[in-house]
Amino acid sequence: MFGFRVLKRDKATQGRLGLIETERYRALTPIFMPVGTLGVVKTLSPQDLRDLGSTLILANTYHLYLRPGHRVIKELGGLHPFMGWERLILTDSGGFQVYSLSPLKKVKEEGVEFKSHLDGSMHLLTPELAIEIQEALGSDIMMVLDECLPYPCSQKEAQESLKLTHCWAGRSLEAKKGRTALFGIVQGSFYPELRRQAIEELGEMGFDGYAVGGVSVGEPPELMYETVDLCASLLPHDKPRYLMGVGRPEDLVEAVSLGIDMFDCVIPTRNARNGTLFTWEGPMSIKRTCYTKDPLPIDPQCHCYTCRHFSRAYLRHLYMNNEVLGLRLNTIHNLHFYLSFMDNMREAIARGRLSSFKKEFFERYGGGHEEIP
Amino acid sequence: MFGFRVLKRDKATQGRLGLIETERYRALTPIFMPVGTLGVVKTLSPQDLRDLGSTLILANTYHLYLRPGHRVIKELGGLHPFMGWERLILTDSGGFQVYSLSPLKKVKEEGVEFKSHLDGSMHLLTPELAIEIQEALGSDIMMVLDECLPYPCSQKEAQESLKLTHCWAGRSLEAKKGRTALFGIVQGSFYPELRRQAIEELGEMGFDGYAVGGVSVGEPPELMYETVDLCASLLPHDKPRYLMGVGRPEDLVEAVSLGIDMFDCVIPTRNARNGTLFTWEGPMSIKRTCYTKDPLPIDPQCHCYTCRHFSRAYLRHLYMNNEVLGLRLNTIHNLHFYLSFMDNMREAIARGRLSSFKKEFFERYGGGHEEIP
Repeated sequence: MFGFRVLKRDKATQGRLGLIETERYRALTPIFMPVGTLGVVKTLSPQDLRDLGSTLILANTYHLYLRPGHRVIKELGGLHPFMGWERLILTDSGGFQVYSLSPLKKVKEEGVEFKSHLDGSMHLLTPELAIEIQEALGSDIMMVLDECLPYPCSQKEAQESLKLTHCWAGRSLEAKKGRTALFGIVQGSFYPELRRQAIEELGEMGFDGYAVGGVSVGEPPELMYETVDLCASLLPHDKPRYLMGVGRPEDLVEAVSLGIDMFDCVIPTRNARNGTLFTWEGPMSIKRTCYTKDPLPIDPQCHCYTCRHFSRAYLRHLYMNNEVLGLRLNTIHNLHFYLSFMDNMREAIARGRLSSFKKEFFERYGGGHEEIP
Repeated sequence: MFGFRVLKRDKATQGRLGLIETERYRALTPIFMPVGTLGVVKTLSPQDLRDLGSTLILANTYHLYLRPGHRVIKELGGLHPFMGWERLILTDSGGFQVYSLSPLKKVKEEGVEFKSHLDGSMHLLTPELAIEIQEALGSDIMMVLDECLPYPCSQKEAQESLKLTHCWAGRSLEAKKGRTALFGIVQGSFYPELRRQAIEELGEMGFDGYAVGGVSVGEPPELMYETVDLCASLLPHDKPRYLMGVGRPEDLVEAVSLGIDMFDCVIPTRNARNGTLFTWEGPMSIKRTCYTKDPLPIDPQCHCYTCRHFSRAYLRHLYMNNEVLGLRLNTIHNLHFYLSFMDNMREAIARGRLSSFKKEFFERYGGGHEEIP
């Protein structure tokens, strides 16, 4: 069972407050999904994630397929008990990692052949295998295998690719054995007519939700927003919309205003490990010498575990000495920021004031801290 | 204020149950102190340590002096608020790290000149500076600077060195400005007459407690136990006795039986990060292929957070993929084992059955798992 309801629409924007429901758990949208590549959101325990209020995380099929292998995880009862997480998990199809991590890949009608970035072994990822893996993992929301195009790419290439992506989308639906939700992925590069066609054809197949793929691949932000705007205006209003791999806080507020419901991105977690911390004034770098004796928390108004207990001086000390605790404390802070940011947007939509929230956010964000080098 | 009371003596051994009391906190002995080198027990938050029931940790003066510097920590209110730990902290004098980490050192009457292992800068650590640093850190129990001898070393060298160590011990007492507890350190290599002399001379100076130093430096275990036995039989009965840098579980039970009250060692925390986990059957290596699909916790009888929530298969997966969470979960388990081990010994002493406990321990320990390579 997978359900999605729009609970409230914003007044001046396309923003919407929604609810995803499955037998396992519920999640309010718009939602940010922390990335748990290998069955762990790097540095955090499931308890940390629950304390942060996270309800839905993403796990990477490509990585778990290569290690420890989906069959091992299935034997151990699935990804939820394996990692000790009883709330929701969305799995990607593995396609994006094949394109970005494999040193060698060949797209064929049957699927995509690739070389493991770990041991050089050859594999063939088909739409059917992607579903098989995700079902073995016990995912709550599965994604279809699609072809990811580089930017820029010609309209002819994008048109050809769309054919393959839709053929795979159909095969994915057929391959599905259980009742787990499956999302289609809208491709079409930055050609409005192709995006239109994609939405029409995928809509006819009837997915549980729709992702906007093929963005955040190097294009200017305005082009991304145009594409997101177009897709969101055409996608079925009663299904969740997921913008894959996006993004910075400024991207999230723009995309939520355009009607996007779901996000995932490594930015908060990866930046935390690199010492870049998010605040309402903008990102700050904990490495800076000026924090050596700074007794303040990262953000004096933040209520996260890290800000309630530790100073910038201590976090800088941990960072400078490669102390593992620092990675976790920084990750807790950044995810708290992202999840609170989504909380605030949901509340703004509920009160019909998302456009004021957005305006206030941009007035403040980026004003108070140094540029991140 | 620093107080120590022996609450109970074991029947058949020299083991004793005791209580350390300061204005800040209380700690039952025999106690194991986790090592928090840089103001952090590697991978753990203060909350983790409290959850483990730890009451007294060790911090390294040498490391904190070099970074971030004791003056920085003093400005921030001391080590307790800096690291968010409100229970007890024992600091060493820095001497041992100078001898073991500095690429260049020269012992003079004034103190020990050394080159920082970090940036090559030259420093002179005197007994007075060691006290100044420890007082700046706000330590609860300070240690005197002593000379650490290699093993083996001639009786003449050890005799000469003892003179210097005792001169420094006297200067340390004089340098102390506050009322913080200060422990003397018994040296004398493995020469019983020198150990006897050391205990007599230090005893006359009147320290709050006494450490047995200069052991676990490469000598055979029997020689260490002989020395510990001798020292414990001669040391004042109303002061705590601290065996520095020891050790393995088998060492702890032997030394507690000989009348030692306090221990510190990097073994549980460092081994955790290397994938070696302690159980009542002996240590096990989580790296082994046989754990790939093993659904059991590390130790099915263990009540630690790690064992209550995660399988060997998951911990192996985290270890093999260098996931930071694995370092923390392993550390939690190993410290839980060490702290429970001390709990059990305290209970055994309270019930006058430490020798039975020791016998049962050795019957079981090391029997159930593979040899650690």
